[in-house]
Amino acid sequence: MATQGQIITCKAAVAWEANKPLVIEDVQVAPPQAGEVRIKILYTALCHTDAYTWSGKDPEGLFPCILGHEAAGIVESVGEGVTEVQPGDHVIPCYQAECGECKFCKSGKTNLCGKVRAATGVGVMMNDRKSRFSINGKPIYHFMGTSTFSQYTVVHDVSVAKIDPAAPLEKVCLLGCGVPTGLGAVWNTAKVEPGSIVAVFGLGTVGLAVAEGAKAAGASRIIGVDIDSKKFDIAKNFGVTEFVNPKDHDKPIQQVLVDLTDGGVDYSFECIGNVSVMRAALECCHKGWGTSVIVGVAASGQEISTRPFQLVTGRVWKGTAFGGFKSRSQVPWLVDKYMKKEIKVDEYITHNMTLGEINDAFHLMHEGVCLRCVLDVHA
Amino acid sequence: MATQGQIITCKAAVAWEANKPLVIEDVQVAPPQAGEVRIKILYTALCHTDAYTWSGKDPEGLFPCILGHEAAGIVESVGEGVTEVQPGDHVIPCYQAECGECKFCKSGKTNLCGKVRAATGVGVMMNDRKSRFSINGKPIYHFMGTSTFSQYTVVHDVSVAKIDPAAPLEKVCLLGCGVPTGLGAVWNTAKVEPGSIVAVFGLGTVGLAVAEGAKAAGASRIIGVDIDSKKFDIAKNFGVTEFVNPKDHDKPIQQVLVDLTDGGVDYSFECIGNVSVMRAALECCHKGWGTSVIVGVAASGQEISTRPFQLVTGRVWKGTAFGGFKSRSQVPWLVDKYMKKEIKVDEYITHNMTLGEINDAFHLMHEGVCLRCVLDVHA
Ligand SMILES: NC(=O)c1ccc[n+]([C@@H]2O[C@H](COP(=O)([O-])OP(=O)(O)OC[C@H]3O[C@@H](n4cnc5c(N)ncnc54)[C@H](O)[C@@H]3O)[C@@H](O)[C@H]2O)c1
Ligand SMILES: NC(=O)c1ccc[n+]([C@@H]2O[C@H](COP(=O)([O-])OP(=O)(O)OC[C@H]3O[C@@H](n4cnc5c(N)ncnc54)[C@H](O)[C@@H]3O)[C@@H](O)[C@H]2O)c1
Ligand SMILES: [Zn+2]
Ligand SMILES: [Zn+2]
Ligand SMILES: [Zn+2]
Ligand SMILES: [Zn+2]
Repeated sequence: MATQGQIITCKAAVAWEANKPLVIEDVQVAPPQAGEVRIKILYTALCHTDAYTWSGKDPEGLFPCILGHEAAGIVESVGEGVTEVQPGDHVIPCYQAECGECKFCKSGKTNLCGKVRAATGVGVMMNDRKSRFSINGKPIYHFMGTSTFSQYTVVHDVSVAKIDPAAPLEKVCLLGCGVPTGLGAVWNTAKVEPGSIVAVFGLGTVGLAVAEGAKAAGASRIIGVDIDSKKFDIAKNFGVTEFVNPKDHDKPIQQVLVDLTDGGVDYSFECIGNVSVMRAALECCHKGWGTSVIVGVAASGQEISTRPFQLVTGRVWKGTAFGGFKSRSQVPWLVDKYMKKEIKVDEYITHNMTLGEINDAFHLMHEGVCLRCVLDVHA
Repeated sequence: MATQGQIITCKAAVAWEANKPLVIEDVQVAPPQAGEVRIKILYTALCHTDAYTWSGKDPEGLFPCILGHEAAGIVESVGEGVTEVQPGDHVIPCYQAECGECKFCKSGKTNLCGKVRAATGVGVMMNDRKSRFSINGKPIYHFMGTSTFSQYTVVHDVSVAKIDPAAPLEKVCLLGCGVPTGLGAVWNTAKVEPGSIVAVFGLGTVGLAVAEGAKAAGASRIIGVDIDSKKFDIAKNFGVTEFVNPKDHDKPIQQVLVDLTDGGVDYSFECIGNVSVMRAALECCHKGWGTSVIVGVAASGQEISTRPFQLVTGRVWKGTAFGGFKSRSQVPWLVDKYMKKEIKVDEYITHNMTLGEINDAFHLMHEGVCLRCVLDVHA
């Protein structure tokens, strides 16, 4: 391709400062170095982690940066030594890398690859600990190793999942974060068995994907908990069988659920990021075996608490990142499941906009009417 | 036997009030009713749960009562419908029942049988919701469904483990609580694999049994943590390979352990009952898979806390009661393992005294020089 080895100047939404509108800028994207891949991003969705860092509440947030981590695109060029993808491949960039070689990957017990974290955690690439993004020579930080709010981005090769080229990129971009997180929380982290009673706290994209995963796992009851009663109609389509709005009850929500289920649920999932709800989600679990999985991301500095007796009497407290999925090996499998209509994706997309409308898209997200908004990055 | 169907008057240590010395009294022990077993207790040890309730800090403690729950004896008589034991059988009374029929027993996921809890939790027997102990007509409460600080006690049939009559009761009485708790925390709750790095917080009987269990499970390193450096010499005999005294370090103990183990331990066990140590035990676990088990019992009202990020990045927080062992089916198996010299018991017994010396025995326990003190109940 004509652009290989060249700097590409393209549009990107730049977060210059915390909590200030993103600005569409002409950004210079340097060619990929050894072990790197440059991707033409076609579609990206917005996720709460973008909004969180943008808000300035993330103490590790670095500005200026290019946010975005739920996207799909096509490989434009690859750096030296990259063998697993080549120009033209359809891919999903993965904020959770998978190198296959580090002690995390080798353990077989976790998807939290450690290979590039030292660089992605501070907004740069491993090779030279510098950014590939700049505007007139001024570097712009990467974000989560993905930075998908840009027409082109550069990522580490261990962070690229190659997918079926027949898959519609404007849909499967969602398989970069929220949907796999919910499905995997159920399938990988909790390992819900047929007949289980499940409670889902928070019925956004992540909570709905939990419900969908629980239904697929054969759960007998899926109790959705949300303070927004409008969510129930949507939630039914994802497998939620009962709905509880904490605002309708005087009792603590954990007590409401224990009463509803003759002792508590088998599995619960917190998909909000609220530490009091995390406690309720643990405490509504059945004595002896109930397992609660924290999926929501709480604001920095906040803490969870409970009485240790909750654990001594058999409850288990866990958490999950990207649903425990190994990104490069399992995202393509999720895409295949979508192509076979075994998992939903389209149903989570409530809005379609363009990169230029990204600030409006963030507003939508904050208003809660939106599950996922997909941006056409080149429109 | 001459005593069958009769009230037996015998010696028992009665806790008349919280925090007042126990008094050896002549107690009337009524015959067992349907589904009950009267046991001649030969040997009993003291455990911290006895001391905790005695201290008055246990909000569910009822006085006057007969404490004690780590003991062995011989069945004196059985009530109507009792088929699994008969007079003369050697038994260990179990504060954790096992009925085989309740939803807990049937779940296969927990040892927390629910059959008699409604009664044992309030110091009475299920049948008539009354006590079998009295002094001149005044009822004395049961404790934990066992009340072993008495020459005779009455327990529910679902709380009696029948053991090999060749086993020395003055030793195997320890298999009623502390030793199984530690072994089971490793084998049943954590399921430690060969090669694992293990940290044990607190090197009393429970912590030493954790170390012993971890060694048997093939742990590669067993790091003992105690504020009493005298514990290390003893601990070596139970499998502890390294010793850390938090008092020797300025850094938080979780950081000391993370540094010692290149990222954290695979499994940790809190065997003290201190909520700050419970937090440290979780936070010294390795990202991605480290599992922490709470074994110690904290004082009422105290809470554990941590940042939810600890769980989202793959650590698991659990707890255990009686090490997850199903009492009636597995205590006999533990006795057999002891008889085959596959587990230690004798080594935990540092003192032998008589029932009449029970107040001195409690003092010993508080001084920390003692692991287990076994009382000869009929001396
Ligand atoms: N662990 C991971 O890997 C991972 C990945 C993606 C997203 N997340 C996190 O998952 C969470 C959910 O993401 P989402 O996109 O579904 O968010 P969302 O905002 O779309 O959904 C949250 C839902 O929770 C409801 N809610 C808010 N407060 C509530 C309360 N007190 N009780 C009950 N319901 C309440 C809201 O009405 C909303 O329906 C976020 O914290 C996000 O950061 C985690
Ligand atoms: N979960 C269960 O089923 C179960 C069963 C039996 C006992 N327990 C509990 O287990 C705990 C331990 O019992 P035990 O009989 O071994 O007690 P113990 O008192 O003999 O041992 C406790 C040890 O912890 C050490 N310690 C105290 N504070 C410490 C600190 N801050 N840091 C490090 N070490 C510290 C002490 O020096 C001592 O060696 C108790 O809380 C007991 O109630 C629980
Ligand atoms: Zn996300
Ligand atoms: Zn890796
Ligand atoms: Zn005990
Ligand atoms: Zn039972």
